[in-house]
Amino acid sequence: MNGKIRIIQYGLGPIGIEMVKYLAERPAFEIVGAVDISPDKIGRNLKELTGLELPLNVEVSGNGAEVLKKVKADAVVLTTSSILERITPDIIQIVSAGVNVVSSCEELMYPWLTRPDLSRQIDEAATSNKVSVLATGVNPGFLMDFLPLALTGVSRRVEKITVERIQDAQFRRIPFQRKIGAGLTLAEFEEKKRQGSLRHVGLTESMHLISAGLGWELERTEDIISPVISEKDPNRATGVQQLGRGFKKGQEVITLRFRASIGEPDPRERIFIEGTPNLEMRINGGVNGDVATCSIITNAVPVVVDAQPGLRTMADIRIIPCRW
Amino acid sequence: MNGKIRIIQYGLGPIGIEMVKYLAERPAFEIVGAVDISPDKIGRNLKELTGLELPLNVEVSGNGAEVLKKVKADAVVLTTSSILERITPDIIQIVSAGVNVVSSCEELMYPWLTRPDLSRQIDEAATSNKVSVLATGVNPGFLMDFLPLALTGVSRRVEKITVERIQDAQFRRIPFQRKIGAGLTLAEFEEKKRQGSLRHVGLTESMHLISAGLGWELERTEDIISPVISEKDPNRATGVQQLGRGFKKGQEVITLRFRASIGEPDPRERIFIEGTPNLEMRINGGVNGDVATCSIITNAVPVVVDAQPGLRTMADIRIIPCRW
Repeated sequence: MNGKIRIIQYGLGPIGIEMVKYLAERPAFEIVGAVDISPDKIGRNLKELTGLELPLNVEVSGNGAEVLKKVKADAVVLTTSSILERITPDIIQIVSAGVNVVSSCEELMYPWLTRPDLSRQIDEAATSNKVSVLATGVNPGFLMDFLPLALTGVSRRVEKITVERIQDAQFRRIPFQRKIGAGLTLAEFEEKKRQGSLRHVGLTESMHLISAGLGWELERTEDIISPVISEKDPNRATGVQQLGRGFKKGQEVITLRFRASIGEPDPRERIFIEGTPNLEMRINGGVNGDVATCSIITNAVPVVVDAQPGLRTMADIRIIPCRW
Repeated sequence: MNGKIRIIQYGLGPIGIEMVKYLAERPAFEIVGAVDISPDKIGRNLKELTGLELPLNVEVSGNGAEVLKKVKADAVVLTTSSILERITPDIIQIVSAGVNVVSSCEELMYPWLTRPDLSRQIDEAATSNKVSVLATGVNPGFLMDFLPLALTGVSRRVEKITVERIQDAQFRRIPFQRKIGAGLTLAEFEEKKRQGSLRHVGLTESMHLISAGLGWELERTEDIISPVISEKDPNRATGVQQLGRGFKKGQEVITLRFRASIGEPDPRERIFIEGTPNLEMRINGGVNGDVATCSIITNAVPVVVDAQPGLRTMADIRIIPCRW
C-alpha cells in the first residue's frame, strides 16, 4: 500500500475508457482492476485498450467477484448501465466486499422514490459494510440539481426553481448528434421516441434530488419529450427538447428545460430561483457534458471513500472539488 | 420536546436581531434562548426587541453559561464578533455543553492556517463533545469560496480561480455606504484604512478555503485595499476595492476582486475557472449580502446539527439548501 486510493473500473464502453484516462492521470489514485463483460475486451491489457503511456498493468476481467477477491480496492467506478435494476446485483456484491461505489447510473441519482425497494437494499448493504454508494454526473448529478440546490443556500425562501440546459450540438461528436435525433424526419423522431432511445434519462431524478434537498413533497412530475423542428425543413428535427415539471399543491414549482440541437443560438446553463430574493445564474456557452461527467465522477472518488456509510445522493454529500 | 431544532441566539446587534427574524419564521426551529452583553438588552423580551408577532417568550440573558445550563438546545447561532480570539472562550463553553455552533465570524471560516492553536482547541472540544462548529456567511463563506469550489466539481484540472464580487452601494443602507468609505476624501480614506475599519474581513479566509478544497498549498497571500476614486471629484472615494491574491510556485493561482462603490455600472458575481475546461459563471446584479448572510446561517443550522463532529468549514460540509 502506498497511500493511494485503489480503484477498480467496471465497464469499458466509451465512458469507461474515458474514465480510465481521467483516473490514471491523478497521482492520488491507482487503478488496480478492470471489469467488462465483452468477450473482445476480457484478457486484454488496459494500456493497450486505452492507448495510455501510463504504468498500468491491469488485465480486463470478465468476473467482478474474482477481481474483488484478488485485489484490495477502496472504490469501484461503475459505468456499465443507466438502468438501476441491472446494476443492483453488482453494487451489492461490491459493497459486500467492503468497497465503495461511484457510479454514472442515472437511475441511481435519487432512487428513493422510483425504486424504494432497491434503494433500501443498497443502503442496508452499504451501511452494514461501512462503505458508501453515490451516483453522479453532469446531468443528472450536477447542473440541474446539485448546483441549483447549492445556490439556494443564500435564499431566505424558495418558491420555484427553473433550470435551463441549452446545448448547441453542432460541434459535438456524431454519436451525440445521432442520440438527440438530429436530422431525423418527424416520423422517424416519433418512432425513436416510442422505442425509448431518444430519452435523456434523469430529469425525474433531478426533480427528486431538488425536492429532497429542499424538503418538498412533489405530488407529481412530468417528463415530456419533443423534437426541435428545423427552420429550413419543417419536417425534420435538429435535435430534442425535454421538459421536466414538478408540482406541489397544484403549483409548478420545478421546471427543467433540456434542449440539444444543431445550431442552437444561445447555448447556456441557466438557473433561476424565484423566492426571497430572486437569483439568476448563467454559464454562457454551457458546460461540455462528456468532460464534466468524467470529471465529477473522478473528483467524487475521495469524497465517497470518506463519506458517511450508506446510499448517498448529491443532495446529502459534501461538495466535490477538483482536488489533485 | 417537539422535534424542532432548539436554538439559542448569541449576540443581538443588527445582524443578531435579523437572525432572530430569519430563525423564528422557520417551522422546524424554536428559539429557546438569547444572550447579549449589552446592559440595555439584558432582561428584555425578544418579542419586544425584534417587533415580531411570533410566539417568542424568551428573555435576553447576559450570562451564556446560565442559559446553557437552564435550557436544552441543539445549536447556538453566534453573531457577536469577527475576531476569532474574542469568541473562542464562548465557543468552548457552548460545545462543552454539548451544543453545536453556527457562527458568522469571518476569522472562523478557515482558521487552520491563521490560528492553528485556536482551531485545534475548538476542534478537540467539539469532537470530544460530539458536536460541530461551522462559520458561514455570504462572503466569506459562499460566493468567493464555496461556490467556486463547488463549480470545480465538473473540472478535469484547475489552473487558476478568479472571483469578482462587484456591488453597487447606491441602494444599500447608509451604514453600509459609510462602511465602504463612500464620500470620504482620499486622505480620510487612508486614515480609516490605517485604523483598520475599512477592511472587508475574509478574503484571506476565502483563499484558504479554496486552497484547502483543491488541495493547494499557497506559499503566500496578499490582501490589498484601495479606494474607488470618484470620477466627478478625483479627491474623493465612492467606495472601496480589495484585491486578494494567492500564489503557488510563484504563480498567482487565486485572484479575488471585491469592489463596493456608489454607481458601480455592472454589479455582479463572477467566477472564472481556468483549467480543463474553462468555465465562467455570472450572477448579474449580484447577491444582496445582508439577506444572503442571514439566509445561509439559517439554512446551515440543520446541516451543522447533523454534521460530522469537530470544527467544520464550508470546504468539508455537505451542501446547505434552503430547507423549510
